[in-house]
Amino acid sequence: MHVTTFGEIMLRLTTPVNQKLIQATHFDSNYGGAEANVAVSLAQLGNQVAFITKLPKNDLGNAAASAVSQFGVTTTHISHGGSRLGLYFLQQGNGIRASNVIYDRANSSFATSNATDYNWDVLLTNTNYFYISGITPALSSGLQETLLTAVKLCQQHNITVVYDANYRKKLWSSADAVAFNEQLMPYVNICLVHDEDISEAFGIETAFDGDRQHVIDQKSSFKDSMSLITDMYPNVHTVASIVRNLYSAQHGKWTALLLRDNHFYESPIYDMTVNAEVAGGDAFGAAIVHGFLHHFAPQDQLNYALAAAVLKLTIPGDFNLASDAEIREVMQSSGHLMNR
Amino acid sequence: MHVTTFGEIMLRLTTPVNQKLIQATHFDSNYGGAEANVAVSLAQLGNQVAFITKLPKNDLGNAAASAVSQFGVTTTHISHGGSRLGLYFLQQGNGIRASNVIYDRANSSFATSNATDYNWDVLLTNTNYFYISGITPALSSGLQETLLTAVKLCQQHNITVVYDANYRKKLWSSADAVAFNEQLMPYVNICLVHDEDISEAFGIETAFDGDRQHVIDQKSSFKDSMSLITDMYPNVHTVASIVRNLYSAQHGKWTALLLRDNHFYESPIYDMTVNAEVAGGDAFGAAIVHGFLHHFAPQDQLNYALAAAVLKLTIPGDFNLASDAEIREVMQSSGHLMNR
Amino acid sequence: MHVTTFGEIMLRLTTPVNQKLIQATHFDSNYGGAEANVAVSLAQLGNQVAFITKLPKNDLGNAAASAVSQFGVTTTHISHGGSRLGLYFLQQGNGIRASNVIYDRANSSFATSNATDYNWDVLLTNTNYFYISGITPALSSGLQETLLTAVKLCQQHNITVVYDANYRKKLWSSADAVAFNEQLMPYVNICLVHDEDISEAFGIETAFDGDRQHVIDQKSSFKDSMSLITDMYPNVHTVASIVRNLYSAQHGKWTALLLRDNHFYESPIYDMTVNAEVAGGDAFGAAIVHGFLHHFAPQDQLNYALAAAVLKLTIPGDFNLASDAEIREVMQSSGHLMNR
Amino acid sequence: MHVTTFGEIMLRLTTPVNQKLIQATHFDSNYGGAEANVAVSLAQLGNQVAFITKLPKNDLGNAAASAVSQFGVTTTHISHGGSRLGLYFLQQGNGIRASNVIYDRANSSFATSNATDYNWDVLLTNTNYFYISGITPALSSGLQETLLTAVKLCQQHNITVVYDANYRKKLWSSADAVAFNEQLMPYVNICLVHDEDISEAFGIETAFDGDRQHVIDQKSSFKDSMSLITDMYPNVHTVASIVRNLYSAQHGKWTALLLRDNHFYESPIYDMTVNAEVAGGDAFGAAIVHGFLHHFAPQDQLNYALAAAVLKLTIPGDFNLASDAEIREVMQSSGHLMNR
Amino acid sequence: MHVTTFGEIMLRLTTPVNQKLIQATHFDSNYGGAEANVAVSLAQLGNQVAFITKLPKNDLGNAAASAVSQFGVTTTHISHGGSRLGLYFLQQGNGIRASNVIYDRANSSFATSNATDYNWDVLLTNTNYFYISGITPALSSGLQETLLTAVKLCQQHNITVVYDANYRKKLWSSADAVAFNEQLMPYVNICLVHDEDISEAFGIETAFDGDRQHVIDQKSSFKDSMSLITDMYPNVHTVASIVRNLYSAQHGKWTALLLRDNHFYESPIYDMTVNAEVAGGDAFGAAIVHGFLHHFAPQDQLNYALAAAVLKLTIPGDFNLASDAEIREVMQSSGHLMNR
Amino acid sequence: MHVTTFGEIMLRLTTPVNQKLIQATHFDSNYGGAEANVAVSLAQLGNQVAFITKLPKNDLGNAAASAVSQFGVTTTHISHGGSRLGLYFLQQGNGIRASNVIYDRANSSFATSNATDYNWDVLLTNTNYFYISGITPALSSGLQETLLTAVKLCQQHNITVVYDANYRKKLWSSADAVAFNEQLMPYVNICLVHDEDISEAFGIETAFDGDRQHVIDQKSSFKDSMSLITDMYPNVHTVASIVRNLYSAQHGKWTALLLRDNHFYESPIYDMTVNAEVAGGDAFGAAIVHGFLHHFAPQDQLNYALAAAVLKLTIPGDFNLASDAEIREVMQSSGHLMNR
Repeated sequence: MHVTTFGEIMLRLTTPVNQKLIQATHFDSNYGGAEANVAVSLAQLGNQVAFITKLPKNDLGNAAASAVSQFGVTTTHISHGGSRLGLYFLQQGNGIRASNVIYDRANSSFATSNATDYNWDVLLTNTNYFYISGITPALSSGLQETLLTAVKLCQQHNITVVYDANYRKKLWSSADAVAFNEQLMPYVNICLVHDEDISEAFGIETAFDGDRQHVIDQKSSFKDSMSLITDMYPNVHTVASIVRNLYSAQHGKWTALLLRDNHFYESPIYDMTVNAEVAGGDAFGAAIVHGFLHHFAPQDQLNYALAAAVLKLTIPGDFNLASDAEIREVMQSSGHLMNR
Repeated sequence: MHVTTFGEIMLRLTTPVNQKLIQATHFDSNYGGAEANVAVSLAQLGNQVAFITKLPKNDLGNAAASAVSQFGVTTTHISHGGSRLGLYFLQQGNGIRASNVIYDRANSSFATSNATDYNWDVLLTNTNYFYISGITPALSSGLQETLLTAVKLCQQHNITVVYDANYRKKLWSSADAVAFNEQLMPYVNICLVHDEDISEAFGIETAFDGDRQHVIDQKSSFKDSMSLITDMYPNVHTVASIVRNLYSAQHGKWTALLLRDNHFYESPIYDMTVNAEVAGGDAFGAAIVHGFLHHFAPQDQLNYALAAAVLKLTIPGDFNLASDAEIREVMQSSGHLMNR
Repeated sequence: MHVTTFGEIMLRLTTPVNQKLIQATHFDSNYGGAEANVAVSLAQLGNQVAFITKLPKNDLGNAAASAVSQFGVTTTHISHGGSRLGLYFLQQGNGIRASNVIYDRANSSFATSNATDYNWDVLLTNTNYFYISGITPALSSGLQETLLTAVKLCQQHNITVVYDANYRKKLWSSADAVAFNEQLMPYVNICLVHDEDISEAFGIETAFDGDRQHVIDQKSSFKDSMSLITDMYPNVHTVASIVRNLYSAQHGKWTALLLRDNHFYESPIYDMTVNAEVAGGDAFGAAIVHGFLHHFAPQDQLNYALAAAVLKLTIPGDFNLASDAEIREVMQSSGHLMNR
Repeated sequence: MHVTTFGEIMLRLTTPVNQKLIQATHFDSNYGGAEANVAVSLAQLGNQVAFITKLPKNDLGNAAASAVSQFGVTTTHISHGGSRLGLYFLQQGNGIRASNVIYDRANSSFATSNATDYNWDVLLTNTNYFYISGITPALSSGLQETLLTAVKLCQQHNITVVYDANYRKKLWSSADAVAFNEQLMPYVNICLVHDEDISEAFGIETAFDGDRQHVIDQKSSFKDSMSLITDMYPNVHTVASIVRNLYSAQHGKWTALLLRDNHFYESPIYDMTVNAEVAGGDAFGAAIVHGFLHHFAPQDQLNYALAAAVLKLTIPGDFNLASDAEIREVMQSSGHLMNR
Repeated sequence: MHVTTFGEIMLRLTTPVNQKLIQATHFDSNYGGAEANVAVSLAQLGNQVAFITKLPKNDLGNAAASAVSQFGVTTTHISHGGSRLGLYFLQQGNGIRASNVIYDRANSSFATSNATDYNWDVLLTNTNYFYISGITPALSSGLQETLLTAVKLCQQHNITVVYDANYRKKLWSSADAVAFNEQLMPYVNICLVHDEDISEAFGIETAFDGDRQHVIDQKSSFKDSMSLITDMYPNVHTVASIVRNLYSAQHGKWTALLLRDNHFYESPIYDMTVNAEVAGGDAFGAAIVHGFLHHFAPQDQLNYALAAAVLKLTIPGDFNLASDAEIREVMQSSGHLMNR
Repeated sequence: MHVTTFGEIMLRLTTPVNQKLIQATHFDSNYGGAEANVAVSLAQLGNQVAFITKLPKNDLGNAAASAVSQFGVTTTHISHGGSRLGLYFLQQGNGIRASNVIYDRANSSFATSNATDYNWDVLLTNTNYFYISGITPALSSGLQETLLTAVKLCQQHNITVVYDANYRKKLWSSADAVAFNEQLMPYVNICLVHDEDISEAFGIETAFDGDRQHVIDQKSSFKDSMSLITDMYPNVHTVASIVRNLYSAQHGKWTALLLRDNHFYESPIYDMTVNAEVAGGDAFGAAIVHGFLHHFAPQDQLNYALAAAVLKLTIPGDFNLASDAEIREVMQSSGHLMNR
């Protein structure tokens, strides 16, 4: 069983601990992006994964490819060309001070790539799962077309399509997202969508009152929305969602919901006090796929995925380098140690 | 509207994260001091500010001036000469281990400066607010004289005098502080005084029982003292005070009180878990002045000032580099996100 | 009054903050080991202490000796030779992610040392307290023999034997530990044993249910075991034990129990949120001995020792560099500031 | 006497010592650009200088402005807007390995700015020297227009125009450079042009054989070209040129030539072994202007400028932070210590 | 065409710049070893390469594998098990102070591996070049056997055997090396041997007088020895040798000799002033093989290999991350820029 | 045989590599001072050494004492009290840019100490060599008195007095130095004096023309002066002198002269290209004493001392951590490798 993920990988430049950008005399650097993160997670867990993107032919492009191949991801399908690697500056939050991101990803090799850069017939050979996210269609209409071409091919070849419907308001409007998602969703089999993204990405109205500190209390509103997705798109057999109460940049509670084959499952709740790291959602998505690849029972799949997500938050950078053993150790302790 | 601040700026040498001084093989360095910090805060918020001090004619003196001009403060009024830049070593606290400071500021260019170094007639031209603190008179009688000369001139020219009555027991006795403050206060218009400093600086007895973990519960005792100040010095139209419960080096609750034109205002309470950073009081004082410069309503002025103060605690170094937008973001979230 | 400690000192290589080992491009390094840590603590508190071990004749061996002599420990009794310095890699925990250690200490100069390397008649001259731990006998049968030789000599010369019965399951089985401890305990006067080590090291069954989050609630079960030790070994006049609730890598509650001359004493409880540092137990043991050297009353001895332990957790590395003044400051604040 | 400089300032991201870009886990950062560097040099030497550019309205733009204001440059004339700050990655050379630059400056706020962003009538008020470089016209035709507008205004108001004709082959063709320079040069009064740039920028054929290790031996060919410039453009009263033999990334010989009012002057030769730092030419250009501002004799002006340039090479970053005293110390030692 | 390399990869712990080991508070870390270095070089140049070794099943073993897969080397043939990863401490030289190495590689997973760990029939499938070094047989007789088994298989399957006969006196005696090499050499086709290793490894007496500052002057003595090798072992069609004058830890001259099909070739001489980096010989060996894979003419092959070697010295760590373009740039400049 | 050294130890704060002070965001820190450096050198070489000074009773004073005890120096004779630890800022030179020091040592605990702080009768018990330098008398007349008291006692008890007559023009005038030295020299037995210090410290006119690049060529002028010293002070049996050509901050030639019992000895010449480190003279002085302690023949003593000095220059910080083996390795290679 093989997995292919497709999306943008960027250079992240992070200010040193607690510093504001104007104070920085150096930046910590790493490479990451939702679909690259998913690829690394799955490879770390022992699966065969290929990552597809388009990178510039320079040392930054090479470094980005090297970053994922380091952890065992196949990079031979990557397209090369274009003018630059997308990048972003991250000023991590501290207590009441929220994280701040300056995107500098316009005109990247990936954002300006289009259908002619990806020969899906070849690229999807031997693939069983195709993983994409809501970031890619937000970048250009060319990439929207590319995605639709790819998922239609997946449908023809019985390749499972996994879609993380994360909505980025800095990249496109909710209206545009809803419009595109209406075209895409008929081809999706597994849908990931977290917190209030469900309304932005799908135009679904929820009963959630918008209080970011009391999301978990209102999880039934999210369940309603999840059911609505499977009602609207019968091809979607699984919807998984992380639901979080956020108290400060370093403190929150995390839980997760799974709707699989019309049954709901709920995970334990983790009370997390960690530095403001990112990419917990990608770790979650990768672990959901891992659960399918290895035939986990739904409850186990969900608990495993949330444990992977919260473990990721303890690791600097974008990649979830936690091993299967570490995830299972957290799962064991969670009902006992954390979830009381 | 222009602001002038006057006081000492020092080199701070901080041990690396959690290290004790004896372990250090390097020191992080920055420049700061109460009145310099206030000047930077106000300049960052878009106001015209000049900082006055005396600096040695060497690279350390130049670096200190450069540190404030970097953020837009006018430094052309600084006096140059004397033998050395004051400095101090800071070993930041960690949990139950309190911060430790070794002062090495004796004989600094500023501490040994006196009235002949500052031509107030020239220096206070075009100034509307003159900001000073209780640290300067603690350094020498020459500086006490200088301050009195300056505030008398302010009274003549209708320049508002802002006095942060912070009391530093390592520098002078409470008796000396009280004696000097009795001379100064008749010229002060806005008085900042935090926590129990009110008794040390003014000799006012309070009902506060001394328990640093339960200061906020006893805020009425502080209100009584604030009223007493305006009773004694009718020229003081505003008294503002931060009141804190301190639980450990990284954990405390912060609130603030404002007595303006005989009305009391109270801010929300912030529950703060941050590294042991300093200069929250300076950020508060600067923001109170900013509130006057921009005609904030009293409640807004107080909330703004406390938000600025707690935001400062999240930023390394002495300067509050938070923008107006960031302060307002915290204000908005505070009643909701933090203050429950 | 002199103290001699005997055991292994290793090079510790620690990954940078929060990084997993696979991410590290450098390692922070320091030297430490239970008995070396105790020696440094006692020397820092002003006592005469010698540390005995065996080190390789190379720059790593010299650096290890230098690390303890830096803080005033006598190192002239150290034996030199053998093939290597033991070392271990430490990946510090972060929130729900536990710390991970890779030991690489096999075949070290100390582990392969034996009775012929230590002339106890000479080494124990002028010693009043001899401090050892349960780590040393776990390394080899040669070291078991060496220990037994030494403690028998101590008994002859009225040297007080202090034994920290810490059990390391990566080094030997509980059965082997119990068997050795049965041979050693008749010569021990002061026994330190923490948390559930009491069952692993001595084969004593306890009523403790194994829940690491609720250890303190069950402290009576530990008291029962402590009494059992003094019943079995009347030569043991003192048993001291740290008891902890552990919530995450950075959060726990610490308290301590003392059984001295048949009376029990309990310390306050500290609620600790600190980075995952080690060697709190060694700081505790050293402070217990310090209490005897300076004739502290039992309750004061226990409170002092726990304050030393929790203070250690705030300091990077293995050594407790806290001064007597700092320990007393924590003791004063503890009932008040921390223990509510 | 005031100086205004106009050009782009970028964020420079430099790999740590000797590392290739693919090895970097962090980048050292600083802000710089030819004309910003000149502004800082002149301000450091005590002159009144304003820097004009266009910066994005975000923290990176603010940090770039702060970087020059830190050293006393007036930044109030900077235009704000556009989409991004230009940046570049620098992998410094090491011995036989040459430095490598990856530019990522396309679509920057400055590169996409045009005549409407700069109100020259206002901006050039009170200016006596206007300093520009050959980098700006290489960025867009809009900037070419802007430059021509500005220099024409300078001619009308008797503002001296200083032009550093540095040619960047990665930005435009020699043909385009020659064509633009033909339009600009009639308005230039002081021209800086180094090494073989003279042929690329002006289309002047030289007798130089292209051997980068033997440039100084062939300095007469450069003198011929310099004379040609003043022949072609009688408005140019001064041409100054650095001439270098380059042996490796860290080793070279530096000398300089000055043609002023039809007389030639030559500086001593410095044999330099320093890390591969940049911006020596900008330090040179600033010092030439400083010489005019302070009425240096031509030989002194040239020696001063070259001393400033070689001193810059010893300082990390783009700015020449050397003081007048340090430059004069190098000048004194040079005939003696270095130039034998 | 595929290449397989076989040998040990270790963790290298390097003291920070110029520090002695006793001063270090951290160590820079990287992974390397002769044959791993060769594998990475060849992969970086675009070839298909597999690296074979035995690694412990822990995070250090995983990190070592990850380090080579990052650069495109196939790691699926690596054997897993054994007790530890070999490591060494490197204190880099500085001027007259020589580099110092403390090996800690005894009992590593690789050193204790033997014939049963490597199924050569499978491992050498699809391999055209098999690359080994004189370090491996120095580790154990089990590894000697393994090597002999492998090279005999190579002979049967027409796989070219490349042997870097580097002699490490800290690992075995010259007599043992000579004895083993007599068994191995009948199966070797390409032999690399540098400087005076030729006498230690093969027992060949040379006319070289032992003066490490005048090795290049005596290169004819090395040529004689190279001829002797091909005389003794007609199966050896190529012998390549780096010859160096060493002046200090940072200064030396490098040249190289090639005997291929009975003709001698000599490279230019590079005068190198670089930090004391290692693994130039491995970069050279990899480039010689690259020359065969891509049918370089002998002179070009030699010049290319030496350029690769000297370029490696400018790059921190063990791996040669120079690209083909960078190597060719150095080749072009060498006759001109460096070799005068 | 025991050695006692007496003088000031300071905190040195050094800017990061090549940075100017105004650029520094941190300072590397270490402790050092001429006589402390000598003490550490001698202890490292296996001798019994005590260091005497006066330190403040705070963490900086403790850290300074710890820094020397780390390397085996006895610190129990140190006096405690006074107000501060002396410190200085060091901006290391780079090529043509000279090092720059900002002293901040006025009013230190040592500088303000006097005869009552040092009970020489006790302190000099068991001492055979007493080592002092020309820095101490430059600090105060109280210290001049103290020194004279001490050396008179040495004469009474046959303790050899070693005096490094280093002259610091920032601390006192040449006239004052000459006047004091005339009082001290009658009690000195071994005198160290380097380069042109001989005229500043003793008022001896030399034929040296002042060219710092050609000092070694004029070594005969230094020999004349050395003879003059022994003529004037017959109690001086040994004069040793380092003589240097200085080309840049990183490049110089070092040689040394010894006049012992009326015979002259000359060392080889070292051509040194190292970073601008300090304290070579202290390493030299310590090694001269070591030569006496171990009865080295004069030529061996001189060569050993110069090898120790140049080796020190390769080590960061103030202390010479080179071992006897390393010094001997340099001695062996010097005639051969370096001195050609």
